[in-house]
Amino acid sequence: MAIEIFWGSGSPFSWRVLLALAVKNIPYESKLVEFSKGMHKSPEYLKINPRSKVPALRDGEFTLYESLAILQYLEKVHPTPALFGSTAAETGKIMQWVSECDNYLAPAVEGFTLPIYFGQLNDSTRSAVLEAGQNALAELSRVEERYERGNYLLGDSITAADICYYPLLLGVLRAAGKPAAASLELGVLPLEKRFPRLAAWAKRIEALPGYEKTYPPHWRAG
Amino acid sequence: MAIEIFWGSGSPFSWRVLLALAVKNIPYESKLVEFSKGMHKSPEYLKINPRSKVPALRDGEFTLYESLAILQYLEKVHPTPALFGSTAAETGKIMQWVSECDNYLAPAVEGFTLPIYFGQLNDSTRSAVLEAGQNALAELSRVEERYERGNYLLGDSITAADICYYPLLLGVLRAAGKPAAASLELGVLPLEKRFPRLAAWAKRIEALPGYEKTYPPHWRAG
Repeated sequence: MAIEIFWGSGSPFSWRVLLALAVKNIPYESKLVEFSKGMHKSPEYLKINPRSKVPALRDGEFTLYESLAILQYLEKVHPTPALFGSTAAETGKIMQWVSECDNYLAPAVEGFTLPIYFGQLNDSTRSAVLEAGQNALAELSRVEERYERGNYLLGDSITAADICYYPLLLGVLRAAGKPAAASLELGVLPLEKRFPRLAAWAKRIEALPGYEKTYPPHWRAG
Repeated sequence: MAIEIFWGSGSPFSWRVLLALAVKNIPYESKLVEFSKGMHKSPEYLKINPRSKVPALRDGEFTLYESLAILQYLEKVHPTPALFGSTAAETGKIMQWVSECDNYLAPAVEGFTLPIYFGQLNDSTRSAVLEAGQNALAELSRVEERYERGNYLLGDSITAADICYYPLLLGVLRAAGKPAAASLELGVLPLEKRFPRLAAWAKRIEALPGYEKTYPPHWRAG
């Protein structure tokens, strides 16, 4: 029986798992959890993830949630291509980048994108949203500066760092392009101008076999 | 040359690394980073961790920061006893617990303990501090409920889940015991009454060989 993957459209934490499945070419049964229909609160889903969040995984009787846990589970089940390196130094550096992504970039992206997506950008939230956006840009600047050579963030092989950073970058770009965000003048668009290395890197991710299947379906609608 | 570990007294993220070193019986050179002396901002330390945070590691020319990255580096360098399991299911579940610890418990503990430690508990912060404390207790309740059998959180072997949760629990207990926190009436003390399984588990951690060396030195002063 194929691994079942429960994911949400546009969730950056879901997207990283879908990208890992694509890179590793792992067959899976796709289970879209539609929050608008309350599927994340259904008794069946709560058995898989009592926190009502996405992503989650079911492999036979085994269930798992939290995206980083799922990535490392998939790494053990399908070790090649390795997303977490092979030597201690490789694994350590990849995990350092992933931790920086989760501890610094992810909360900033959440603070910037969610109020814009949900129509909560107003006079009382404006300064906090702008600050979150600026924090996100500061984190992306660090990545742009440290990313000096190679096709991917840590060299010529794709790693967990790439698949964790990419969906968060795309979230920033999408939110920054919304009419409501224009007045914030965040200055991230066009990406080619602000972060040329990240722009070229994003194109490389988007050319990966299987990428199209990972793209958030509701984003295609605008 | 021994691995050098840069850590801060009372930092839960440092403490987990010190516990891993104790459990794996890895010799290391201890480098206490004293924030009160500004050591985390020194040019020498910024080369090791440009974010000025603890913990960090130096192994010859190799440097690394972010606690989870350090734990996984140590796991590769000294694989036994394994803290991240051996099978995919074991690794996945351990990482799920570690992610839950970092994503839900850690921010709550920070929001509860830091204002108490730094004398910032006052009328304007009171409700936020109390809410953070209640969130921390809710997370600890989940652990207490899920922890049904075995000497450690995930069975009879100590894992990364134990060494990540333990320092955060101790932070809650220490902050809750401060005179300033009494009026919050959080109700976590005595631990034996509120969370009997966690109380017994904490005693087991504290009986580990090498535990004493990991205890925050400035906590002994009160």
